[in-house]
Amino acid sequence: MNVFGGINGARAASRFSLIGVGALAVTVLPTPALAEVSGETEYVFNSLLFLLTGMVVMFMAAGFCMLEAGMVRSKNAATICLKNISLYAIAGLMFWVMGYNLMYGVAEGGIFGVIAMWSASDPMLASGEFESGSYASGSDWFFQMVFCATTASIVSGTLAERMKLWPFLLFVVVLTGVIYPIQGAWEWGGGWLDANFGFSDFAGSTLVHSVGGWAALMGALFLGARNGKYDARGRVNPMPGSSLPLATLGTFILWLGWFGFNGGSQLALGTAGNAVDVSTIFINTNMGAAAGVVAAIVATQLLYGKVDLTMALNGALAGLVSITAEPLTPSIPMAALIGGVGGLLVVLLVPLLDRLKIDDVVGAIPVHLGAGIWGTLAVPLTNHGTFGSGDPTFLGQIVGILAIGGFVCASSALVWGAMKYTFGIRVSAEDELDGLDYSELGLEAYPEFVRS
Amino acid sequence: MNVFGGINGARAASRFSLIGVGALAVTVLPTPALAEVSGETEYVFNSLLFLLTGMVVMFMAAGFCMLEAGMVRSKNAATICLKNISLYAIAGLMFWVMGYNLMYGVAEGGIFGVIAMWSASDPMLASGEFESGSYASGSDWFFQMVFCATTASIVSGTLAERMKLWPFLLFVVVLTGVIYPIQGAWEWGGGWLDANFGFSDFAGSTLVHSVGGWAALMGALFLGARNGKYDARGRVNPMPGSSLPLATLGTFILWLGWFGFNGGSQLALGTAGNAVDVSTIFINTNMGAAAGVVAAIVATQLLYGKVDLTMALNGALAGLVSITAEPLTPSIPMAALIGGVGGLLVVLLVPLLDRLKIDDVVGAIPVHLGAGIWGTLAVPLTNHGTFGSGDPTFLGQIVGILAIGGFVCASSALVWGAMKYTFGIRVSAEDELDGLDYSELGLEAYPEFVRS
Amino acid sequence: MNVFGGINGARAASRFSLIGVGALAVTVLPTPALAEVSGETEYVFNSLLFLLTGMVVMFMAAGFCMLEAGMVRSKNAATICLKNISLYAIAGLMFWVMGYNLMYGVAEGGIFGVIAMWSASDPMLASGEFESGSYASGSDWFFQMVFCATTASIVSGTLAERMKLWPFLLFVVVLTGVIYPIQGAWEWGGGWLDANFGFSDFAGSTLVHSVGGWAALMGALFLGARNGKYDARGRVNPMPGSSLPLATLGTFILWLGWFGFNGGSQLALGTAGNAVDVSTIFINTNMGAAAGVVAAIVATQLLYGKVDLTMALNGALAGLVSITAEPLTPSIPMAALIGGVGGLLVVLLVPLLDRLKIDDVVGAIPVHLGAGIWGTLAVPLTNHGTFGSGDPTFLGQIVGILAIGGFVCASSALVWGAMKYTFGIRVSAEDELDGLDYSELGLEAYPEFVRS
Repeated sequence: MNVFGGINGARAASRFSLIGVGALAVTVLPTPALAEVSGETEYVFNSLLFLLTGMVVMFMAAGFCMLEAGMVRSKNAATICLKNISLYAIAGLMFWVMGYNLMYGVAEGGIFGVIAMWSASDPMLASGEFESGSYASGSDWFFQMVFCATTASIVSGTLAERMKLWPFLLFVVVLTGVIYPIQGAWEWGGGWLDANFGFSDFAGSTLVHSVGGWAALMGALFLGARNGKYDARGRVNPMPGSSLPLATLGTFILWLGWFGFNGGSQLALGTAGNAVDVSTIFINTNMGAAAGVVAAIVATQLLYGKVDLTMALNGALAGLVSITAEPLTPSIPMAALIGGVGGLLVVLLVPLLDRLKIDDVVGAIPVHLGAGIWGTLAVPLTNHGTFGSGDPTFLGQIVGILAIGGFVCASSALVWGAMKYTFGIRVSAEDELDGLDYSELGLEAYPEFVRS
Repeated sequence: MNVFGGINGARAASRFSLIGVGALAVTVLPTPALAEVSGETEYVFNSLLFLLTGMVVMFMAAGFCMLEAGMVRSKNAATICLKNISLYAIAGLMFWVMGYNLMYGVAEGGIFGVIAMWSASDPMLASGEFESGSYASGSDWFFQMVFCATTASIVSGTLAERMKLWPFLLFVVVLTGVIYPIQGAWEWGGGWLDANFGFSDFAGSTLVHSVGGWAALMGALFLGARNGKYDARGRVNPMPGSSLPLATLGTFILWLGWFGFNGGSQLALGTAGNAVDVSTIFINTNMGAAAGVVAAIVATQLLYGKVDLTMALNGALAGLVSITAEPLTPSIPMAALIGGVGGLLVVLLVPLLDRLKIDDVVGAIPVHLGAGIWGTLAVPLTNHGTFGSGDPTFLGQIVGILAIGGFVCASSALVWGAMKYTFGIRVSAEDELDGLDYSELGLEAYPEFVRS
Repeated sequence: MNVFGGINGARAASRFSLIGVGALAVTVLPTPALAEVSGETEYVFNSLLFLLTGMVVMFMAAGFCMLEAGMVRSKNAATICLKNISLYAIAGLMFWVMGYNLMYGVAEGGIFGVIAMWSASDPMLASGEFESGSYASGSDWFFQMVFCATTASIVSGTLAERMKLWPFLLFVVVLTGVIYPIQGAWEWGGGWLDANFGFSDFAGSTLVHSVGGWAALMGALFLGARNGKYDARGRVNPMPGSSLPLATLGTFILWLGWFGFNGGSQLALGTAGNAVDVSTIFINTNMGAAAGVVAAIVATQLLYGKVDLTMALNGALAGLVSITAEPLTPSIPMAALIGGVGGLLVVLLVPLLDRLKIDDVVGAIPVHLGAGIWGTLAVPLTNHGTFGSGDPTFLGQIVGILAIGGFVCASSALVWGAMKYTFGIRVSAEDELDGLDYSELGLEAYPEFVRS
């Protein structure tokens, strides 16, 4: 179905005539011909890695949606579904309009010139010379886009059950178009955090997860807790989620997606060395999550005398977030340790947030911010160098955490505040009581089931 | 589905003659071996593309099932689940029994000789000479089969809540074994629409989605609306779906599957050029869906003062259907425009169908037929040629839409009518009131939850 | 995001210098250099097959979870979710601690030396010489781990609604760390069943599915039926599942995962021949499931006058289990026959188990044990040799079924019994009546929906 037949034909011709040349030259210098073939195979393998792992990361949007739909009360389940599918759509559009270029250099055609960055006009196609590690720029664009969307998915859960629809979507526009790309540029865009401080974040414990967590925390502060969540004496009134099976499904989908999230962040599959590394990343990612689950169920059993399913789910996610900053260098036991500490963290941070009356409906702040910071700090445990040499160090990691945290808190607070003191971000107390499905959408998620 | 088979053939030929030149120039040198290695690597890449994308397209059967189970009332949810898993099973069997050969040529052993078409007896395996663009025929068979099943999945939703089980499954037998393959042969089978009119449908806006839509429309006309859906004055009595979270999950699964649906339709991943094209297809597919969601939520907000989640979900699907006829040549903004118009179409077509008292339980007709026609007409916007030259034109697209629409309407009407006037296709009014789960299956989808 | 940039660079350098060396040799003997390139491409393809199919097999954990959550009553749905995510986590940890080495040879560093088995210290990376069929050992480790987890997933469903949480998890520790690996070593570890009896089990009808089935059967016998399931006269009191749509979703997820389960068991994708075989396996796997569905719905219609959705779902799974022992050699019609018989078996075995008062909540014993035995016996129908020659024979298959069945029954009974007569494995009658969600977890899966 390649409608560019002619062009490809030309491409192919020039390429293979080049091989011909290489072949003619073989007697003297055969390497080009060999390297070339290998180079194009690498190019396809690398692009395939982005496309395959990008697909499963995209599916994480469904995972967040099911997790959140299961953790909110049924009167808000349809609204959270709408927010999740809308934020994924907006993230894709904004990352095209400006996000990608803001993050990876505005050289090509300015901030809004992203189109040029993934077009088929890949000089390597014309030349037939494929550098090792190269890939279709569109496959990378797709992979980076789903990371941007993941950041927005993290925010929706914390703010569920009392946040207006359109102000939330407006925040997503700014987060995915401006805030995420700017801080991302500091590190993955080859910016100053990377260059000057050796800050290291393999797949985004800080750049993706803590960014979502900081933005959610700011939102929770400006938005306030759900009515009735905390009484005058600060006692917590539990508001259990409407469908734990859906929340569990969402967690499994996120666990699946994380293989793509961390594995794809190797950015290459074109050599045996890359295949070995991606395999190691898969194992460590799974071990981090597994240890997070076990740590959470053991801790809740010991602390509360009962295992809490929602803690087990968040333990898995915290383990995944923790191993995301460095899934390649840890040994299996170290990966399990890093993930296990993450799972334990969540069990301790959830009640702490409640004590602070910070109302996080799904526990996204402990999972993505808490474990995100821990995972970032854990990088030098297995991948350490000297400060200033460009290698990761504890000091460099702290610099990155503070710089990105400060920027995201300030910029998010600006947006939340500006909206709060103009058109407002919170529904009325009456609408909150009725549920957002009724007040915002005029429908019900489960219209037939009688509610207690 | 390669509508440029000839051109590709030519391309391969010219390319290999070029290699020949190179080879001649090398004489004692390894170029023939080089070509062979490259050929076999391509063969594996191409087969892998079919297997990987075929898997996610297969998963679309689960997406349709969840979408429909969430959009029907709970008293019919188990029946729609049974219909969905059964139709996927039947499609696989019928496409083997006769579908594939009807579609791709009965040369090999007649209509029922499909076995020969995917057997391991690939001459290239013996010769070791792998042509560029070649693949394991079984991987292609699997990919084509899941497309056939998708067509059947589209029909079940429209006809839910009043259609008998066995007559529906019988229709699926004819649709997947005869109707779908015959019209498919006209285009992807290298038939007359392709050859004479330059009709172009990259991944099936018309060949898959509008075919399902036309068959569903005919079924809806023969079946009639659900009792009580429209009152004497034609006013619509809404019958809201039982679980919008499941409907949302289904939509996300379909969105995921669409990367396979459109990306796999490139039919090759063996060269850097293919990797670039598949990447472009992934981005445009996502952009079409994203714009469809945004168009739908903005339109419902403006038209009705509230955002409708089910419209947002159908907006995503309409965007995906719209970009399916040509996901490769549009630029990102054009892909977003095509998808956005699709999303808008659904918002306008759903009430129109109600005005016509055509009862479509899940909105499959607006999404798959409406957006399918739009997407097919949009192909020449970015991929235009002169009529008669084999290139796509608006005239050629209209010819294809009418030819396939006419054939599918006539053949479907014949089957629906023949069943209606013999053993009947609709359950009794009493059974419909009790719900098909009780009357057809003797069980309940949610036996414990008290219904209002 | 690759923090190993430098090292990879070095690796790439050394590799390309090696190619250089090969290239220098080209003038006289080019083949080594060629074989090398091809060898590394194979290495990547084979590793990618394990990673891709391992991901979808991992997702089967979600499939089992949804199937079981939908088949239990809502008062036990959260507990079965917790058991499913916990067992997957434990399986991963135990397969690392000792399982993998017990199964594939303790040579390297003893039972607990598994780390060495998948480390990046692959001699082929240093040498640059990649044997045909080689792969990253970590990718294989990941693939084998998810198989181990699948075995544990099978057990949880049968024992739902009355089994204590911690004793179940303790059983999972022994099953995944000791029982599964030991019997697995007899065959896939290149053990005596394989060597002496030509026992053949391509992807695990016996080694995975019947092992889970035997363990579940022993558990059911020690645990006893749910209170009220069978009355004094042995009449069955049906206890319908709480959400058939979730059960259907789980079945679709398992169907999807099975392409990875059987396809990945080819263990290689590096050659055109492998691509052809994996394609054949995909088709046969799908045909087995499809025939299982059709057989089950037709049989229930004829036997009971109504189609039973849960039988259709189990028919699909039984078809999949049946074709798992040999998905490569059967023709399509033979694959359909094998799967169809499996689907029929389930329809007959479910009532038989009830007559024996063996209470299997989800039908895992008929599906995984019944169809697992059938599928294993069916191998010689299409892949037969002479006994003693190392080829599959009916006698050899029976030896394997009995040896593994005997070992798993004995070892499982030991563990179940030891637990039963010490701290107990069953909740109190009162806790069972209240539901395990309340008594074991202190929460509800669906807290808002009023239950009848």
